[in-house]
Amino acid sequence: MVESWSFPDTAESNFRPLVVIELAKGTKEETIEWFTKRIVDKKADGGAQLLIQPLVTENGVENIYLVGASHLRLLLGAETVGLVKECNDNSMRTFTYSSRKTFKHFADDNHNFLTMAECQYIIKHELENLRAKNEKMIPGYPQAKLYPGKSIVRRLLTSGILVQIFPLHDREELKKLSHSWYGRVKVGYQPLDDIRCYFGETIALYFGFLEYFTFALVPMAVIGIPYYVFAWEDYDKYMMFATFNLLWSTVILEVWKRMCAILTYRWGTLLMKRQFEEPRPGFHGVLGINPVTGREEPVYSSIKRQLRIYLVSLPFVCLCLYFSLYVMMIYFDLEQWALDYHKENESNFSSLMLYVPSIIYAVVIEIMNRIYRYAAEFLTSWENHRLESSYQNHLILKVLVFNFLNCFASLFYIAFVLFDMKLLRQSLATLLITSQILNQFAESLLPYWLQRRYNRRMKKRMCSKKTDTDLSLAEQVNMEKEMGTYLGTFDDYLELFLQFGYVSLFSCVYPLAAVFAVLNNITEIYSDALKMCRVYKRPFAEPTASIGVWQLAFETMSVISVVTNCILIGMSPEVDALFPDSKMDLVLTVALVEHLLLAIKFIMAFVIPDKPRDIQMKLAKLEFESLEALKQQVRAFQMQL
Amino acid sequence: MVESWSFPDTAESNFRPLVVIELAKGTKEETIEWFTKRIVDKKADGGAQLLIQPLVTENGVENIYLVGASHLRLLLGAETVGLVKECNDNSMRTFTYSSRKTFKHFADDNHNFLTMAECQYIIKHELENLRAKNEKMIPGYPQAKLYPGKSIVRRLLTSGILVQIFPLHDREELKKLSHSWYGRVKVGYQPLDDIRCYFGETIALYFGFLEYFTFALVPMAVIGIPYYVFAWEDYDKYMMFATFNLLWSTVILEVWKRMCAILTYRWGTLLMKRQFEEPRPGFHGVLGINPVTGREEPVYSSIKRQLRIYLVSLPFVCLCLYFSLYVMMIYFDLEQWALDYHKENESNFSSLMLYVPSIIYAVVIEIMNRIYRYAAEFLTSWENHRLESSYQNHLILKVLVFNFLNCFASLFYIAFVLFDMKLLRQSLATLLITSQILNQFAESLLPYWLQRRYNRRMKKRMCSKKTDTDLSLAEQVNMEKEMGTYLGTFDDYLELFLQFGYVSLFSCVYPLAAVFAVLNNITEIYSDALKMCRVYKRPFAEPTASIGVWQLAFETMSVISVVTNCILIGMSPEVDALFPDSKMDLVLTVALVEHLLLAIKFIMAFVIPDKPRDIQMKLAKLEFESLEALKQQVRAFQMQL
Repeated sequence: MVESWSFPDTAESNFRPLVVIELAKGTKEETIEWFTKRIVDKKADGGAQLLIQPLVTENGVENIYLVGASHLRLLLGAETVGLVKECNDNSMRTFTYSSRKTFKHFADDNHNFLTMAECQYIIKHELENLRAKNEKMIPGYPQAKLYPGKSIVRRLLTSGILVQIFPLHDREELKKLSHSWYGRVKVGYQPLDDIRCYFGETIALYFGFLEYFTFALVPMAVIGIPYYVFAWEDYDKYMMFATFNLLWSTVILEVWKRMCAILTYRWGTLLMKRQFEEPRPGFHGVLGINPVTGREEPVYSSIKRQLRIYLVSLPFVCLCLYFSLYVMMIYFDLEQWALDYHKENESNFSSLMLYVPSIIYAVVIEIMNRIYRYAAEFLTSWENHRLESSYQNHLILKVLVFNFLNCFASLFYIAFVLFDMKLLRQSLATLLITSQILNQFAESLLPYWLQRRYNRRMKKRMCSKKTDTDLSLAEQVNMEKEMGTYLGTFDDYLELFLQFGYVSLFSCVYPLAAVFAVLNNITEIYSDALKMCRVYKRPFAEPTASIGVWQLAFETMSVISVVTNCILIGMSPEVDALFPDSKMDLVLTVALVEHLLLAIKFIMAFVIPDKPRDIQMKLAKLEFESLEALKQQVRAFQMQL
Repeated sequence: MVESWSFPDTAESNFRPLVVIELAKGTKEETIEWFTKRIVDKKADGGAQLLIQPLVTENGVENIYLVGASHLRLLLGAETVGLVKECNDNSMRTFTYSSRKTFKHFADDNHNFLTMAECQYIIKHELENLRAKNEKMIPGYPQAKLYPGKSIVRRLLTSGILVQIFPLHDREELKKLSHSWYGRVKVGYQPLDDIRCYFGETIALYFGFLEYFTFALVPMAVIGIPYYVFAWEDYDKYMMFATFNLLWSTVILEVWKRMCAILTYRWGTLLMKRQFEEPRPGFHGVLGINPVTGREEPVYSSIKRQLRIYLVSLPFVCLCLYFSLYVMMIYFDLEQWALDYHKENESNFSSLMLYVPSIIYAVVIEIMNRIYRYAAEFLTSWENHRLESSYQNHLILKVLVFNFLNCFASLFYIAFVLFDMKLLRQSLATLLITSQILNQFAESLLPYWLQRRYNRRMKKRMCSKKTDTDLSLAEQVNMEKEMGTYLGTFDDYLELFLQFGYVSLFSCVYPLAAVFAVLNNITEIYSDALKMCRVYKRPFAEPTASIGVWQLAFETMSVISVVTNCILIGMSPEVDALFPDSKMDLVLTVALVEHLLLAIKFIMAFVIPDKPRDIQMKLAKLEFESLEALKQQVRAFQMQL
């Protein structure tokens, strides 16, 4: 029994499956009945007022359900989540059902007014906001407690009854998108607006940043090439390069904010009101009263959390940092050994051996980063943060500090303790290139290969020779539910952040780093695109107005790079030679230049407006209108008196 | 014909005069008629719906008018300006007339629900928002052009027909306030809430900051005293002092943000919505369409303004800076001359003469600062900024840069070019003390003395021996209209800013600076209070949620002081002696310490939350409630469908 996309056999002929819910095998019948009833119940009765259908496959019902919604329901949901859409007069406004006629491309029969990603986001929001009324527990599972206002879906997830919820791919759209994105070799921008329509704003913004950052690195790369080609070793040339680099990195980070404002204004997320933040799913505690909402919800003492952070997490992080430094020392022993070996047996093989310790170290760094990542996640989740944002901040801080030290400690040691510029250059190049190759492999190619193998096996089992777009709905769902889950843009940004470190921290010693970064990023765009389209389940769209804490992280890195580059230049023999009489004058000059550069950086960051003038004007206009509307209301009310 | 506070002869028996309008002598009758009609006209007819009465004195009508409003009108006005008041449940909420019953101390017959300062602020707001309908000019003055939407009061002011608008003092309240504020010698806090009720938030916040800053300086002063008493000259002790000083100054600036949030939350201004900013009164240009509001208003090309800024203002400021440096060089010549004189005739007189150049220089600095201030105001107003905030920012930037250089250039020169710590200490002390004495004299005592003399003459002329509170209304208005106008907190903050510079920039050389600052600030509180209560006209209350750009200015100063103090310590012979072998190591150590301190500063600023936890909770609660209310609205609307 194979279904097709036209669903002739569905209850409502216009039922379009948007989201898949997979329940655990053997879930009790009464639980399923209660859950599906709550999903289809009217809003007035505390339901989500969505449509739901079981997925019927050859093997019968498999506890997989498809969720959809009527067009009207989706429009009302768009108002609830506060979507911002473009109006007929080209301004962006918060969508409301009553003003729907004023929006561009709106028509009562145009079911494409909301993109599929938006529909799926609305359904996710409605499902997550399906709350317990007076149920004390999930029917059939007395151990899965509920209290009034608790999100049912979150409780089902934490108690393992609900295996997963994920949005369906749209094979047709995906094919079009992947063709225009990475399907053909072309020079040009990515189809960011299409990516945003399909994957949502967070992911589109990541690809926007990746692209922007790659373009921004091109000038550095172009200026860096002659240093390699002509083997320029004069430090005055390096100094010029470093100065350009430092100012440039400030400019690109400031300009990105403007770019970001342009993109997110067009996408409507710049204007979207922040939703009130619920406790994160994993948060647990004794039931108490939330002082802000006045509602019953788990409460966990802030002191206990602080104790966990300072008595367990902090020592653990310090231990990890110590271990990382210890591994670094082993690397230097290896390096010494390779050098001795090369001296003893001067051969091609031995000179190749010189690179081996760095390569091994780079691999070890990558492995340590990944293991630490899991530990950090475990610890941060054990710290039991109430809000997802607080959890994310603690996780990012932990990971950033460790990754920074793990990746760059050896380079700092070589530069500022060993004073060995040749080794620094060699080590930097090996670390950068090895980590890039490893990342590309581990993040995209390996999962892609695994996924492909799995798909082929699946298809063979189904004995069908159909292409992806011809798959039946049941086949599609079964294939997608086994795909990996995309865990968010964290790792992708982290990779870019470390790359930015390699490029900027020691740029005056190794100008070629920018070239490698550009080359890597071009392939990264393709492999990340491949990963999003072919390897992972479709992720839920996540509205966002900026790259958040990463902006701060990149800015901090660019401040640190001012300091390192100034010291490196000051240590060079050529600059040294300029001050033959007094080392003091040298150091003082370097310190002066460094302070000047830092001052210029801060002034530049202050002077360059975060939003372009026309976006500022549009925002001012909206603000003015809402103030005027408020004034009108007050006036109308006062006139009645 | 003398009126008393009970106004038995006013048209409405409950007319309470709040604001005084003084028109130019000889203003045409038709203009007065039109203007007063517009003021009393109903809101629906585009009027301000206020009450107005001419002031009748012995000499007959003098073109002075008293403006008041009915209780209901004031309550509606409070809603229009978006006042935030305390509710019965102790939360702060935006006042609306329809929800008036839920507010604390509200009763239909309680005319003290709004403070007098709030009433005056509302009347000012309503007067300024009295806009031209289809008048093309002010009747009787064809050269005073109007266009639809132009503020009538602003046009009357710029064309000189309206001399001034100012709020009346409340002699009774003022007496009470001044008694509890500075009337008796006492140890304790200022009555900030009373000050706020009488003078408004901006001024209360200034006094709050002044008090806080004085308390914050006390630990520095206490630690500084033994350095003077025991004549400690060890640099390790100075180093400790400087380190404490630097971290302390970061802490106090961060903690002030929290204090400020507590104060402004209590006063309601933290929650007050920003009003849409109108063009400033002095702004002129060709009539055009404002792209934001779509209204007709003067438009002035941004390029022309930029040209004025970069081709005229910037060179002028540079010239002034050069001139200031030139004067500094003359001071050093004088200093040299005094030194030579002292060497030749070793006497008490000659050693006294050593201080004379510094004193002269301090006086010259003060004079230059004041002259430059006028020039900066003239230039900035000539730059023709559209918004008051933009005008203020340009003015503050101009003034800060010049004052910083003018006050501190000589100290920097002595410290880092002449390396003369003894002269630095002497010069710092003379500059600080002289400028404090001059400021106290010029800002408060001189105006007070002039005002007192004038008052005595006035009273003599009126042949009355009554005390202030017994004055008739006409006498009171006539006396107040001649009082000086308080031009805002700019100069007061600037004085504190420069004082902070003297205390922190070279604190490790002259720990006693904090002691003088504390002593000065204690008298400053009294003299500023005297100035507000006795010397100036009552200023209009101005709601504000923070000290604005001054926070940034103080933070910048504290960053600069880290750099200067580190260098000073590094230059000291004692620290020098710790590194007998290598001056390099010394400089590197100093640089390292400096970077560490700066890093600690930034991390501290980042880690300390800007608002205390309970204020955060209250704000979150309000946000939650407004989101819930919105959701309810959407839901109610959706259920109708």
